[in-house]
Amino acid sequence: MACRPYPGWFVVFEGGDGVGKSTQVRLLARTLTQAGVDHVLTCEPGGSALGGALRALLLDPSGYSVAPRAEALMYAADKAQHLHEVVLPALRRGAVVICDRYLDSMIAYQGAGRTLELSEVRRLGKWATGGLRPDLTVLLDMDPDRAVGQKSGKDRLELAGADFHRRARQGFLDLAAEHPEAYLVLKARTSRSGIAGVIRRRLAQMGVPGTGHPEMSEDAGTLNDSG
Amino acid sequence: MACRPYPGWFVVFEGGDGVGKSTQVRLLARTLTQAGVDHVLTCEPGGSALGGALRALLLDPSGYSVAPRAEALMYAADKAQHLHEVVLPALRRGAVVICDRYLDSMIAYQGAGRTLELSEVRRLGKWATGGLRPDLTVLLDMDPDRAVGQKSGKDRLELAGADFHRRARQGFLDLAAEHPEAYLVLKARTSRSGIAGVIRRRLAQMGVPGTGHPEMSEDAGTLNDSG
Repeated sequence: MACRPYPGWFVVFEGGDGVGKSTQVRLLARTLTQAGVDHVLTCEPGGSALGGALRALLLDPSGYSVAPRAEALMYAADKAQHLHEVVLPALRRGAVVICDRYLDSMIAYQGAGRTLELSEVRRLGKWATGGLRPDLTVLLDMDPDRAVGQKSGKDRLELAGADFHRRARQGFLDLAAEHPEAYLVLKARTSRSGIAGVIRRRLAQMGVPGTGHPEMSEDAGTLNDSG
Repeated sequence: MACRPYPGWFVVFEGGDGVGKSTQVRLLARTLTQAGVDHVLTCEPGGSALGGALRALLLDPSGYSVAPRAEALMYAADKAQHLHEVVLPALRRGAVVICDRYLDSMIAYQGAGRTLELSEVRRLGKWATGGLRPDLTVLLDMDPDRAVGQKSGKDRLELAGADFHRRARQGFLDLAAEHPEAYLVLKARTSRSGIAGVIRRRLAQMGVPGTGHPEMSEDAGTLNDSG
């Protein structure tokens, strides 16, 4: 534990749209609430007031013309503000930060999905965040052809087409493969309580407070297979 | 002329607030209008629709909390969009682009004036703009203690204090000293018609169309001294 830069824990949920990230975020938050553990529920983009304004500019399908580099820079600005205003203060006081999307989403969507050099997008994201990495990233993986279309009110990203979402999915999986020790890759179509159990077990192994509940003993080992 | 990347001309005006940039921008535009030369009048930040929205977020003194890296990234996003949407299309068709502030303002205010590493801000700006440099940058130089306070309705930058503006002024002068061949440094407190004459003469020497008017012959050589 001594090598972590802050007393708190930074847990990130990643994956395409419609894979159930927000459900798992809520379930983990409920677990921590029941255990009385200090935690913060947040998201990117839009986890700060400024980020919310940037997100509104970026995701409105009837909105502004946005060049690829401008888009990447705005997502990076959202990250820089969110880290500064929300994530770092919580980690410094020892809280568990549960974040719906982080750097991997930026890299997967901007780099793998769009026209920019992956290395440039990664460098940009690293600068925006000062290089802060999550203690654990939970990647909920699903064939995007099944995930997209489950939601109505599609925004700009959701309208970007099936190829885009397939490349983004591969981007997420490639990032997880680079640092397998810091990832938990789960099939998103498993039962939500089964997924929540696997996540709790992993967090308990890491020493995250409030995650050592009895439900952890349920057998859900076969879920940890990204196939 | 063969080494310029586009058929058009990119002329930038830099300097602190209240030094008369917008006056000189308008005078040059009038000269080109009278000569029937295709030109575009624009500015940073806020030269595109998206940039206008970003500028509004950045400059409102009652607005959002903005971390230093987020601020730099938003200025960079403004630049990327402005280049893509306004400057490059005009340069490609052969127009003269007259721009009120560009990269030097970002570097002088963000780097020299704030807490970020100058080298990082420069790298960010270079990436945002794809490395495009102006054919000529006119730097209107003035002691900021005289310039600030001439305008009412001060925005966030104008309220940042005298030290900030003095460091920014030095930042502008340092950038000009790096590439003196691409800069025209003028004392901003000279008469506006005198300044306009020196600028026209320099542009005429460079071959910019529409700038070879009779007024050019007036003697204003002593203005080109940044003291």
